[in-house]
Amino acid sequence: MLHKIINLTVRDVRFPTSVEQHGSDAMHTDPDYSAAYVVLDTDRGLRGFGLTFTLGKGTEIVVCAVEALAALVVGKSLQEIVSDFRGFYRLLTSDGQMRWLGPEKGVTHLATAAVLNAVWDLWARSEGKPLWKLLVDMVSHRKFRSKVCVQDVITISCSVCMQKEGYPAYTTSCAWLGYPDQQLKQLCTDALKSGWTKFKVKVGADLEDDIRRCRLIRQMIGPNNTLMIDANQRWDVAEAISWVSRLSEFKPLWIEEPTSPDDILGHAAISKALAPLGIGVATGEQCHNRVMFKQFLQASALQFVQIDSCRLGSVNENLAVLLMAHKFQVPVCPHAGGVGLCELVQHLILFDYICVSASLDSRMCEYVDHLHKHFTSPVVIQDAHYMPPKDPGYSCEMLEASVQKHQYPEGDVWKLQL
Amino acid sequence: MLHKIINLTVRDVRFPTSVEQHGSDAMHTDPDYSAAYVVLDTDRGLRGFGLTFTLGKGTEIVVCAVEALAALVVGKSLQEIVSDFRGFYRLLTSDGQMRWLGPEKGVTHLATAAVLNAVWDLWARSEGKPLWKLLVDMVSHRKFRSKVCVQDVITISCSVCMQKEGYPAYTTSCAWLGYPDQQLKQLCTDALKSGWTKFKVKVGADLEDDIRRCRLIRQMIGPNNTLMIDANQRWDVAEAISWVSRLSEFKPLWIEEPTSPDDILGHAAISKALAPLGIGVATGEQCHNRVMFKQFLQASALQFVQIDSCRLGSVNENLAVLLMAHKFQVPVCPHAGGVGLCELVQHLILFDYICVSASLDSRMCEYVDHLHKHFTSPVVIQDAHYMPPKDPGYSCEMLEASVQKHQYPEGDVWKLQL
Repeated sequence: MLHKIINLTVRDVRFPTSVEQHGSDAMHTDPDYSAAYVVLDTDRGLRGFGLTFTLGKGTEIVVCAVEALAALVVGKSLQEIVSDFRGFYRLLTSDGQMRWLGPEKGVTHLATAAVLNAVWDLWARSEGKPLWKLLVDMVSHRKFRSKVCVQDVITISCSVCMQKEGYPAYTTSCAWLGYPDQQLKQLCTDALKSGWTKFKVKVGADLEDDIRRCRLIRQMIGPNNTLMIDANQRWDVAEAISWVSRLSEFKPLWIEEPTSPDDILGHAAISKALAPLGIGVATGEQCHNRVMFKQFLQASALQFVQIDSCRLGSVNENLAVLLMAHKFQVPVCPHAGGVGLCELVQHLILFDYICVSASLDSRMCEYVDHLHKHFTSPVVIQDAHYMPPKDPGYSCEMLEASVQKHQYPEGDVWKLQL
Repeated sequence: MLHKIINLTVRDVRFPTSVEQHGSDAMHTDPDYSAAYVVLDTDRGLRGFGLTFTLGKGTEIVVCAVEALAALVVGKSLQEIVSDFRGFYRLLTSDGQMRWLGPEKGVTHLATAAVLNAVWDLWARSEGKPLWKLLVDMVSHRKFRSKVCVQDVITISCSVCMQKEGYPAYTTSCAWLGYPDQQLKQLCTDALKSGWTKFKVKVGADLEDDIRRCRLIRQMIGPNNTLMIDANQRWDVAEAISWVSRLSEFKPLWIEEPTSPDDILGHAAISKALAPLGIGVATGEQCHNRVMFKQFLQASALQFVQIDSCRLGSVNENLAVLLMAHKFQVPVCPHAGGVGLCELVQHLILFDYICVSASLDSRMCEYVDHLHKHFTSPVVIQDAHYMPPKDPGYSCEMLEASVQKHQYPEGDVWKLQL
């Protein structure tokens, strides 16, 4: 715990995913999955690794923001940080000059997430535990306990259940907007064979095309498997209601991001209109902080909370959202995919199950099968379930060779493309 | 109109205002008023000047974001931009890779404002008109007319009234949180002599201190002048209600930024609780886009809309907010001060009066007497009113000597400080 942070490095790492249309949706037609990747060095040799996820262009802006925060981190010991983690969080988010650039939103908050993710990774490594276990043990042993209100017996049985069966996942890998039908069919067939039962389809660019694609996927997966649809903010409120009503025959569980991520009351109107059709509203990957989640929950504007490990201010802010969702009895179904998001968020949803919700009802974690090979402790999926990570830390250390190859613009991958 | 933009430069310009506690409030204790300052060069020699306001540290992040947007601007002609300004706005705010960093909030949106402010300046200069007049003429001559629904006769008489009397202002210069009592008294005395009748006081750090300072100011200005108070987001909801109730004896017209700028429903609760005391809620300087303003208006969460010329996406987005405020019949009282904000926002509020609201009831524009001397066309205040600017453009061209002297970190001012 006396590890003193003596250096912070941040690098712009980009994967050219747009070339094959991985990750394409109605608003993000050509994403290059990227990260501002942070490494903390300590005086005793232990290192912490963190990142925030981006889509390519502009990652250098987040790198610049991380560099602006570095002075607040370097020189502090892990002990000093975690003994007043709330104070440290505020130091990063409420600097008297920097907070004007947010506060707690956009580039500066993404940068805060990258830095704090690395601090949490460092903490978990220093304790020799995977992050989810660090959190579970903290709740079991500390005063935090009373706020979560779970029984020992539930915690222990939930923990055993997770280690045996894992946390249920759904796949978004089968139906990106840019994939042709033949590819959708093949991916669905393969996924069904591998045990997947929950599938998400991107919609929102063209209604007739959506009807055709949803019909195709529903035919492929049958009536008993779960289908979700995701519009990535494409519509206004009235358009969302009419468009999704037209897709209701395919029985989607939720419509994700139907409109602007800031339109809380718009989401509430959509939720109300779609409830009779049995379709919920899911959102969160661009919900920029806990205060915004509070609005969504208070206004009954969502029925599925999609936390993001890199949009919110790391574990600190995600814990606040998990507890609020629990209070409002709204299930948490994390956003993942991109690069590293699955690796990170699996820890949070394991903690949610073991210590907060103790329920799998209407709960599942997104999974996308891309870029895991670049991590030293990639996610382990068995029979469409996330298996709890065993390695110490927060699972977001990347292979140094991958980082160097994909560094922008000087890495080999980009030297060839540019 | 055929001016082709051939170059964009952006510079980090900082004024060491924290040294004398100018601009100090409960959350921003040591601001150095700063700007990301943009200059557009065209092939025919005309130039456009724009900026976004910041508080010092982190301005380099906004500069980095402006540089990321430059490629979307350079090479376009003014004609091309303004003939589809909506398309151009979306090009800047909805790039498939960049939008993940917002969308339309934080650093990237501040950068968008800086770039678009420069484009609007260029447009107004190319027409040889101050920006407010460009807007007024546009409404008078174009199809935009039907959306604003004002009569010719009102527009003309309002325009004459403004040119004669100017737009009413209030002052924030007298009572920054860091000023000692003797300084407050002297500044109030001077301001009253200069014709000021509306005064804003910073509160929120210490209740007893606020009571003492509000009493002092109310005594100085008398019962008939207007007092506003500003907490700069310091409180949570319950705290805001009880704190402001304690200050109600001083009859403030509004409490500004009582809590988190994202807590729409919190502002609604505060509005409801304070209404019986005759105190309204004002907010907006950190309201990050039109969608957020829509929430505040729909939820009856504010009684005074404080637009900001650099937080919102320039004139484009401010026009949307002016029209929404008009629809909800909520007065607009712009945020100003900082560096350049008075120069910019006076154009917007003049347009609001002449073409949208046609009313001065409960309306006034903030004024702070700092840093105007660094502009080529500084605001003209007469008898506590903004006098309509006459020079072509958007009034935010800075003196080149001032820019060079205050450029961070290489300008002379900073070489001495650092």
